[in-house]
Amino acid sequence: MLKAKLALRKQGQESSVVEIAPGKTIGSDAIAIITGPCSVESYSQMETVAKFFKDTAVLGIRGGAYKPRTCPYDFQGMESEGLHILKTIGTEYSFPIVSEVLSPNHIDSMKDYVDVFQVGSRNMHNFDLLKCLGKTKKPILLKRGLSATIEEFVYAAEYILSEGNPNVILCERGIRSFDSFTRNILDLGAVVSLKQITHLPVMVDPSHAAGKRELILGLSKAAIAAGADGLLVECHPDPEKSVTDARQALSLQSMKDLVSGIEPVAKAVGRKI
Amino acid sequence: MLKAKLALRKQGQESSVVEIAPGKTIGSDAIAIITGPCSVESYSQMETVAKFFKDTAVLGIRGGAYKPRTCPYDFQGMESEGLHILKTIGTEYSFPIVSEVLSPNHIDSMKDYVDVFQVGSRNMHNFDLLKCLGKTKKPILLKRGLSATIEEFVYAAEYILSEGNPNVILCERGIRSFDSFTRNILDLGAVVSLKQITHLPVMVDPSHAAGKRELILGLSKAAIAAGADGLLVECHPDPEKSVTDARQALSLQSMKDLVSGIEPVAKAVGRKI
Amino acid sequence: MLKAKLALRKQGQESSVVEIAPGKTIGSDAIAIITGPCSVESYSQMETVAKFFKDTAVLGIRGGAYKPRTCPYDFQGMESEGLHILKTIGTEYSFPIVSEVLSPNHIDSMKDYVDVFQVGSRNMHNFDLLKCLGKTKKPILLKRGLSATIEEFVYAAEYILSEGNPNVILCERGIRSFDSFTRNILDLGAVVSLKQITHLPVMVDPSHAAGKRELILGLSKAAIAAGADGLLVECHPDPEKSVTDARQALSLQSMKDLVSGIEPVAKAVGRKI
Amino acid sequence: MLKAKLALRKQGQESSVVEIAPGKTIGSDAIAIITGPCSVESYSQMETVAKFFKDTAVLGIRGGAYKPRTCPYDFQGMESEGLHILKTIGTEYSFPIVSEVLSPNHIDSMKDYVDVFQVGSRNMHNFDLLKCLGKTKKPILLKRGLSATIEEFVYAAEYILSEGNPNVILCERGIRSFDSFTRNILDLGAVVSLKQITHLPVMVDPSHAAGKRELILGLSKAAIAAGADGLLVECHPDPEKSVTDARQALSLQSMKDLVSGIEPVAKAVGRKI
Repeated sequence: MLKAKLALRKQGQESSVVEIAPGKTIGSDAIAIITGPCSVESYSQMETVAKFFKDTAVLGIRGGAYKPRTCPYDFQGMESEGLHILKTIGTEYSFPIVSEVLSPNHIDSMKDYVDVFQVGSRNMHNFDLLKCLGKTKKPILLKRGLSATIEEFVYAAEYILSEGNPNVILCERGIRSFDSFTRNILDLGAVVSLKQITHLPVMVDPSHAAGKRELILGLSKAAIAAGADGLLVECHPDPEKSVTDARQALSLQSMKDLVSGIEPVAKAVGRKI
Repeated sequence: MLKAKLALRKQGQESSVVEIAPGKTIGSDAIAIITGPCSVESYSQMETVAKFFKDTAVLGIRGGAYKPRTCPYDFQGMESEGLHILKTIGTEYSFPIVSEVLSPNHIDSMKDYVDVFQVGSRNMHNFDLLKCLGKTKKPILLKRGLSATIEEFVYAAEYILSEGNPNVILCERGIRSFDSFTRNILDLGAVVSLKQITHLPVMVDPSHAAGKRELILGLSKAAIAAGADGLLVECHPDPEKSVTDARQALSLQSMKDLVSGIEPVAKAVGRKI
Repeated sequence: MLKAKLALRKQGQESSVVEIAPGKTIGSDAIAIITGPCSVESYSQMETVAKFFKDTAVLGIRGGAYKPRTCPYDFQGMESEGLHILKTIGTEYSFPIVSEVLSPNHIDSMKDYVDVFQVGSRNMHNFDLLKCLGKTKKPILLKRGLSATIEEFVYAAEYILSEGNPNVILCERGIRSFDSFTRNILDLGAVVSLKQITHLPVMVDPSHAAGKRELILGLSKAAIAAGADGLLVECHPDPEKSVTDARQALSLQSMKDLVSGIEPVAKAVGRKI
Repeated sequence: MLKAKLALRKQGQESSVVEIAPGKTIGSDAIAIITGPCSVESYSQMETVAKFFKDTAVLGIRGGAYKPRTCPYDFQGMESEGLHILKTIGTEYSFPIVSEVLSPNHIDSMKDYVDVFQVGSRNMHNFDLLKCLGKTKKPILLKRGLSATIEEFVYAAEYILSEGNPNVILCERGIRSFDSFTRNILDLGAVVSLKQITHLPVMVDPSHAAGKRELILGLSKAAIAAGADGLLVECHPDPEKSVTDARQALSLQSMKDLVSGIEPVAKAVGRKI
């Protein structure tokens, strides 16, 4: 019924694997773990993070240089300065970099600084941005919209794919509901469904779903058990001092514990870390 | 608590009136009625509409040239050809033109063709688009996001206002819910609230809320009674043949009946048509 | 498609009128206004209310004797003492009494004390209660569930009707959403729809929808314009001292102002107060 | 902040274990698996199920004798005849029986036929039923309401506990959302949260959450990884012929496969089957 001919899994079609840096993939047997702070705040902050996760199972580093904030007077990110920091850290510590792109007009200036363009929830329906990203060859980490249906999510991927870019990674990050106990509701039924109906890698962001750090380990295990190909988790050298989303950031040690915590579950479902 | 200092109504502040063409305003005593098809389909379609509403209470004409479609393979609008049709019709029949802008990159090419830029629900959180529109002086019809809170809606307006453009018109168009009986749930509590907490004009789009033409007259009356400053209603010379949103388009005659149907309600709340 | 053969309006079928006391009806040309406190708190409280609305357009008095509270340790109502107060006040001031029934086991003990059984939102899916009420002949004011679809609401009415009690009054009271700015979202599209697809009277409770008293007048006007047959509004002699739902209770004077405030709208849609 | 003093986990308090039959517990190291058809349809249907799961890891059998159906004209269950079948099967095959109770008036007649009273989603806010069940000593499987918040769910448990019955088992079964791709959204953030804030056993019903049998194995693994103490899964000897909820019922063999499928995940989180 869905007309998303490129995103949908054809009978017998294998799952796609997206290479985000030489030898670094999402969608293979190994669970892809990408972590880092919500916002890039300083070089030393990012260096602390990268150094901490050097030679661990962490695959890539994330950090926001352009932040889509509800209020125009809130911190909007370090912008180009943030991109420079990300690039330097990525090169120095050999981590692919994931960062959010907010506008088609930023694609050109960002493309040499980041390895993966993240499309945030608020832009999942920004079709112009999706089409422009479809004209690049960069991997795109596409987050589900705040209240996007599974069908709309698949079609958003199709917007990118149909422009010629096959490197799309879906990311479930929780949907809006009536209950504010958790920030959003992590929809693992969507993860199970998306793995069945599409051939694209599917990651999970438990941080924005939970909004509370004490729930993240449990949700991460559940995500892996549901069949997710990777996790995108917010951490911070000093979580309570994070300028954005402090309540949901893990400490670096907790993030390391998360990696070891999910390993047995990954093995139980035939994956590795 | 809200930091939207420009959008919020200060103690005793009067409601703002936005002029969308010389002598044509939204937010004054007269209810602003804007109508037209979902999509511009041809010159003759638009001319039929404009001719029909010439010398009626209809204030302006709407029509989509760029359409934000869920599926990339569906009709995406007549684009620049559609803009030309809108401009010609607007000039010939002296109607201000309202049309949706999907990208910051379209602002320049659209600005001589339309009188009001509409920001659709899917782009309410497209902050880059909002900032760019804030740098123009054009009136902006800002639709509430599919699941945007009232606070987020006010902040989206603030993004435009804080860049220097005071001409913002809010538009409630229904929010997502669990019930598919109506396409969305028209939130008139939001209209009452927005008129109290902001000084901006507030319009209502009953067409996208209802999704069914037989509900539109009732919801239009309710919107006016709740204090809305205007209505944005989809109509079509041949509703069932509308290429988009056929189920919710009114016939031209039904649209004319709607205008007379809401008149007594407008008077009952101290407004005129 | 709906199999609710008794609730659905047949081709050409007239709207039903429910008599709640001799000569006092809901569903006729006159808008039915029922008001009173959330909870019965004392005889003097109820007497103050009844005396205030004596010889006004108010049709009936409401007050909760049994309260469905989220927390078991919160005030659960005055129970049988509350019923006695309601009965005495109703008789003395000639007002029909509306009060909520929480259990099939209360029907017998309540039936001589109240004129209309209210089924609250939390019990719309309590099918056993609905069936038992269907075996009485009392008018039933059936509130829509917190997240009941329109179809489920119609079927809940059908549960009562199919047991032989034709005296069902539907009441839209707002549904749950992601936005906590208002307590619930008043769904007037449901009111327009229900008036079209069923023949039953439809009331609106703007108090629980809004959760904020400053929104109630606007929503009441909208409800009448949408075609509602009546309003159920919470008021209190000293709103801030109300033991339950204080934030949404109107003062008695504000309630009287509401009655005059909606009158022009009622006339505009061919109704009277 | 929550006043649910009996349900909340006190500092250092151990998790509660509920015994549903001699030696058969929910909340211990072993994952509790309860399965059976949505509705009891015949003795032979129930016997087929019970025989099939005899000497497996299945702990108990479920089946509905009283069915809360949206439409009054749909099959309402075999009622007392269904209870007799359940009792016979339970005795013969040594399975504790779980069955839904719809009314306080059924408690007495059901109590000798079932081992666990299930309170369905539609009755989570039926406080009278909860209070009456609190006066029994039977284990209560309390399902979360269709759109109940986590706080409301905890308070519903408190209604039972505060009447003196400590044997409450919570059950997450999916909440309502805007997306109909899955029947409901399984909220595993609620499971993680409930295990942290309460001491009660928490089960998960993936069948009603998914509404599609192909999603149930994935969601079951996720639920166990999230920390659930058990699963309640619908199966049927001939799923497509199930009189209710056919689309979500597993075949008996698929149900057996599910049990072995979740075993490695259970072990990975320190549990056993």
